Amino acid sequence: MKLLTYKHGEQPFRLGILVGNDHICDPQQAYMSMLFAGGQLRASELSQAMLPSDPTEFLETGDFAWDAAKQAIKYAEDCPGSSGVYSLSAVELGPPILRPKKIIAVGLNYRNHILEMGRDLPTHPVIFAKFSNTLLGPYSAFPWCSDLTKKLDYEGELAFVISRRAKRVPRERAFEYVAGYTIANDLSARDLQKRTIQWLQGKSLDGSLPLGPYLVTRDEVADPHNLSLRVTVNGEERQRATTSELVFGVDYLVSFLSHIMTLDPGDIVLTGTPGGVGEARNVFLQDGDVVRVEIEKLGWIETRIEEVRES
Amino acid sequence: MKLLTYKHGEQPFRLGILVGNDHICDPQQAYMSMLFAGGQLRASELSQAMLPSDPTEFLETGDFAWDAAKQAIKYAEDCPGSSGVYSLSAVELGPPILRPKKIIAVGLNYRNHILEMGRDLPTHPVIFAKFSNTLLGPYSAFPWCSDLTKKLDYEGELAFVISRRAKRVPRERAFEYVAGYTIANDLSARDLQKRTIQWLQGKSLDGSLPLGPYLVTRDEVADPHNLSLRVTVNGEERQRATTSELVFGVDYLVSFLSHIMTLDPGDIVLTGTPGGVGEARNVFLQDGDVVRVEIEKLGWIETRIEEVRES
Repeated sequence: MKLLTYKHGEQPFRLGILVGNDHICDPQQAYMSMLFAGGQLRASELSQAMLPSDPTEFLETGDFAWDAAKQAIKYAEDCPGSSGVYSLSAVELGPPILRPKKIIAVGLNYRNHILEMGRDLPTHPVIFAKFSNTLLGPYSAFPWCSDLTKKLDYEGELAFVISRRAKRVPRERAFEYVAGYTIANDLSARDLQKRTIQWLQGKSLDGSLPLGPYLVTRDEVADPHNLSLRVTVNGEERQRATTSELVFGVDYLVSFLSHIMTLDPGDIVLTGTPGGVGEARNVFLQDGDVVRVEIEKLGWIETRIEEVRES
Repeated sequence: MKLLTYKHGEQPFRLGILVGNDHICDPQQAYMSMLFAGGQLRASELSQAMLPSDPTEFLETGDFAWDAAKQAIKYAEDCPGSSGVYSLSAVELGPPILRPKKIIAVGLNYRNHILEMGRDLPTHPVIFAKFSNTLLGPYSAFPWCSDLTKKLDYEGELAFVISRRAKRVPRERAFEYVAGYTIANDLSARDLQKRTIQWLQGKSLDGSLPLGPYLVTRDEVADPHNLSLRVTVNGEERQRATTSELVFGVDYLVSFLSHIMTLDPGDIVLTGTPGGVGEARNVFLQDGDVVRVEIEKLGWIETRIEEVRES
């Protein structure tokens, strides 16, 4: 299943699910139609409670929501013209998770990126945070305040999302806590990142986490450690790797992180970026540049850098 | 006004407001009673919408919620025995903010702490993150997993909370975006904090941010840069400072942070800790230790360290 968020005109982003290649189903709307068609008088209240329109709340609802979503999609597929189905081309996509409690990023997790940044191989994962103000849709433009940073850089990354509360999870059970995978671009202001000893301020710009296009559920990705990843800027290849090169893999990270802190449904983990970032050759993103991150089985995201000047 | 969260038996923490010295008023419940007594048939729905029980949602609601809260408190004071008033001794207090979008901590913001940690004076604020899993009530015990960290340390700090969306705020208008002040203890696992170059993992333990007891609204604190702060462990003084020693003050931080990222209602900023932390003399918190942080005009919080062993 491929989960996403969409909006259709002026409304908040809502959970959708990809059906076929070019349509989306709003599971809450489809489920409401199904209940209403079956004579349920409180179809609206029931569908809102069972199939929240917010992806984090959907994950929090657990099996209840997944089961209802499957019924809703089947209903929508069986009843052409039923409400809650839209052409993909008619909607705008948002990031597949909107209000995570945590966004945890792993730094220095590909050997070639560690070397290009002049760092030592870490004995433990290096983790840092991004906040939810950074989330951006998979095809949205990034508003670049050139007054704030002159050294804007890309970092293409595999991300995963937590499905249920995880605390001290052993590595061999770690995948049970993974809802699925998606593509991230950890846009980084290198000047802000490096002017103090903690990176957070360079990782906090509004919209600096293009994410998507879908949360691809775990059952569709047999091995998250065997996916090719590629980043281009204006069509020119900048990063190329496979996730088999990750120093610390998905299962290791779930176990490692959950021994330090409780992970919650909707928490996003960025697994780190391979070599080839702009900083390594002192070239940074400029107005009009288009950064594309592709990961096998997950699709691609594309972000146009749009300079905005504010005094 | 002093905002807090409380629970009364098995229920989620809810917003309350201190009335007198030893009672709290649940503004939503009091407002509902007031509307109901006035003949309003939808008293419950209206009070839930106008006076959310979650403090972040309360702040998001803005003037609407503040005005209703004032009416609710007046009604509760005028009508002894009305619903929504509890004795402080009959409830458990939680952290005054429950679901912030961001918790931003400032490191190295008192000269004597910078020196004791062997760091250079920063040219810009050093910021790092904590997540909402760290929030703990003002008098709750901290569950210390001694398998995870042997170097647990305290950091008494003045914290402030954002009242409304803030983006590129000039310093001279910064206080307009501050809802109020509270007391924080940024419990830190020094071994985890220092085993990589980023501090986050040492700042992420569940419950490692005792906060409270109240969010004291800005109008009650004439000058946040002239408050004495004191930390004791088992009654012995460990930190003593005044917030006049802050390198970067509240208004500077609001402006600085809001130029990097959009701040939202309920966001918590910890302003940093003065000298006197345990690490400076290689003494760490142990099972049964009681850490108390007092700040003038804001009260005190007290945290007992309770060792838990998990395999």
